[in-house]
Amino acid sequence: MRIVVTGGAGFLGSRVIRALLAARGRKEGLPAFESILSVDLAPCPVEDPRVSSLVGDVAEPGFAARVVEAGTLGVYHLAAVLSGQSEAEFDVGMRVNLDGTRALLEAARATGEAPRFVFASSVAVFGGEMPEVVPETLAPMPASSYGAAKAMGELLVNDYSRRGFVDGRVCRLPTIVVRPGKPNSAASSFASGIIREPLAGVASNLPVPRETRLWLSSPDAVVGNLVHAMAVEGARIGPWRTLNLPGVCVTAGAMLESLARVGGAAARALVREEPEERVARIVCSWPGDFDVARPLALGFTRDGDFDGVVRQYRDEFVR
Amino acid sequence: MRIVVTGGAGFLGSRVIRALLAARGRKEGLPAFESILSVDLAPCPVEDPRVSSLVGDVAEPGFAARVVEAGTLGVYHLAAVLSGQSEAEFDVGMRVNLDGTRALLEAARATGEAPRFVFASSVAVFGGEMPEVVPETLAPMPASSYGAAKAMGELLVNDYSRRGFVDGRVCRLPTIVVRPGKPNSAASSFASGIIREPLAGVASNLPVPRETRLWLSSPDAVVGNLVHAMAVEGARIGPWRTLNLPGVCVTAGAMLESLARVGGAAARALVREEPEERVARIVCSWPGDFDVARPLALGFTRDGDFDGVVRQYRDEFVR
Ligand SMILES: NC(=O)c1ccc[n+]([C@@H]2O[C@H](COP(=O)([O-])OP(=O)(O)OC[C@H]3O[C@@H](n4cnc5c(N)ncnc54)[C@H](O)[C@@H]3O)[C@@H](O)[C@H]2O)c1
Ligand SMILES: NC(=O)c1ccc[n+]([C@@H]2O[C@H](COP(=O)([O-])OP(=O)(O)OC[C@H]3O[C@@H](n4cnc5c(N)ncnc54)[C@H](O)[C@@H]3O)[C@@H](O)[C@H]2O)c1
Repeated sequence: MRIVVTGGAGFLGSRVIRALLAARGRKEGLPAFESILSVDLAPCPVEDPRVSSLVGDVAEPGFAARVVEAGTLGVYHLAAVLSGQSEAEFDVGMRVNLDGTRALLEAARATGEAPRFVFASSVAVFGGEMPEVVPETLAPMPASSYGAAKAMGELLVNDYSRRGFVDGRVCRLPTIVVRPGKPNSAASSFASGIIREPLAGVASNLPVPRETRLWLSSPDAVVGNLVHAMAVEGARIGPWRTLNLPGVCVTAGAMLESLARVGGAAARALVREEPEERVARIVCSWPGDFDVARPLALGFTRDGDFDGVVRQYRDEFVR
Repeated sequence: MRIVVTGGAGFLGSRVIRALLAARGRKEGLPAFESILSVDLAPCPVEDPRVSSLVGDVAEPGFAARVVEAGTLGVYHLAAVLSGQSEAEFDVGMRVNLDGTRALLEAARATGEAPRFVFASSVAVFGGEMPEVVPETLAPMPASSYGAAKAMGELLVNDYSRRGFVDGRVCRLPTIVVRPGKPNSAASSFASGIIREPLAGVASNLPVPRETRLWLSSPDAVVGNLVHAMAVEGARIGPWRTLNLPGVCVTAGAMLESLARVGGAAARALVREEPEERVARIVCSWPGDFDVARPLALGFTRDGDFDGVVRQYRDEFVR
């Protein structure tokens, strides 16, 4: 009677595991799991007797069947090759993000128990010309191979759900800021960097124009929403299982203003503005604002304003 | 210097091959091919010294690389497991419609020549609630595994095109009527049956309500559009390569009226109306009308009225 978390060693995965442990028995609708299995290329950093860690590659043939066994109440599929690397290494990205997702869905199907299956997708499925506010019915036209593989994963999770193979929930996550730690291969990595680095007294670069709108969420808000995604009744979501998770719409310029207000003028002065074509091309293809009435009605939540997001990071990691 | 046609033994494939032979040197933009290779589980019925036939399974590992070799000017990927069978046999459908498409794209990529790649998709990618007229930006929410696999194929063709691996063109075909021959596994098979059978003096069934709107095209119009899809400049289509091919919006009831006008009251009387839930569920999830301003501006065409479609069939196959 366990919950499986692929990518359980990662930024979100490890936080989701901690949040699940805290929510167990408290959060309505959350399956009453006995244990959590982290599945990742790296061991899970969460130390708790209820958490075990399986190190391996979700896309390796045969591996997924060992991961999702009978008695699995739910699966979080968070393991992924992020956007920068997926663009640089096409085959690696497709193998992990498409084949890995399919292998896990097949393993879930093979249990015959239709476990809940939460898939982390991304606003990177969108591209091309975009309306000011993205409706739920906007066609994914990804401008990156990462977005393309995520969009295919969404279709798989939906079809597996329609057929009753899994009870799927696709969460298109906003860009998450502020990520602690080091920059990563995601094209959106700068969005955390321009807050995190200056608050640590380190220089950083804004590679996109100031007027670029970003759709953002704090780690806490996203993790809370991922726990909620496992807890909510599938029938309440309806037959189509893809949700644009709530976020806040902020321009890059407004982020720098929040940095100045929360971190001071010296921190703000550490951010230079040198355009980087590779990053701008990917990030500017993502939409800046969404109609999230339905997910909000389903109980998903979002941050207040962006100053609060910066303060959340500063209070936890800087002081 | 050849064109490859997968599904070349099929209904559309064999017609596309004949149309290509006729259009060569006449149709502006059409690559000046020397030969055509049909690839299908069955041998190609077209007898012409320029046409050769390779019998095999496009989803068989290693086979696609033999199919798309250096010097391939263009690929039509028409081989597919149709909607009825894909719903009944999930694994077969995914293997052919998803893995087969991917294998061909990989083979095309391996040539390093970015050949034109025309992919036959379908309005079956759509599902759920639909606006009266479908815009180009409507999200695919397939209500069948056939539609899901086609939607994934569309994403692959677009990403391979964006990366310069192929020069793709995705054609979402309307339902084609009147297909000569026998009923097939497609859920839309009745749409041809209710015209074809009565014109041959045979009884037929309408399994969906009369008010069901269908998005239809004659074989001639679709084949002409598929030839055009190979001929049109990729740059004219723009970065997103998916097109809803023009069709005509007709209700099932209006189809029966056309039958009565063109085939007579006796023919009309041969159609009974017994609802079939399995068929209705799939077909009623498909949209009935589309905004096709852009494809029309790109030179794609459609039939006049539905009476003409019925006459086209009667004149070619009944008399
Ligand atoms: N953080 C964001 O802003 C954001 C936004 C949208 C979507 N997402 C998605 O959320 C999920 C988690 O993202 P994150 O921010 O925690 O990233 P992360 O890189 O910190 O975590 C991903 C984890 O997946 C693991 N992994 C990669 N390939 C693997 C494989 N083949 N087999 C097993 N494990 C593998 C990595 O080791 C890593 O621990 C990803 O699916 C990501 O695409 C994140
Ligand atoms: N006819 C329509 O109304 C319609 C509508 C929308 C889309 N389409 C699409 O158009 C394409 C052609 O359809 P059609 O009407 O000619 O169907 P068809 O069944 O007559 O032709 C499909 C051909 O593919 C071949 N095939 C199937 N699996 C194969 C495999 N694994 N390897 C090699 N060949 C294989 C079959 O032998 C057949 O000859 C298909 O992709 C179909 O999905 C058709």
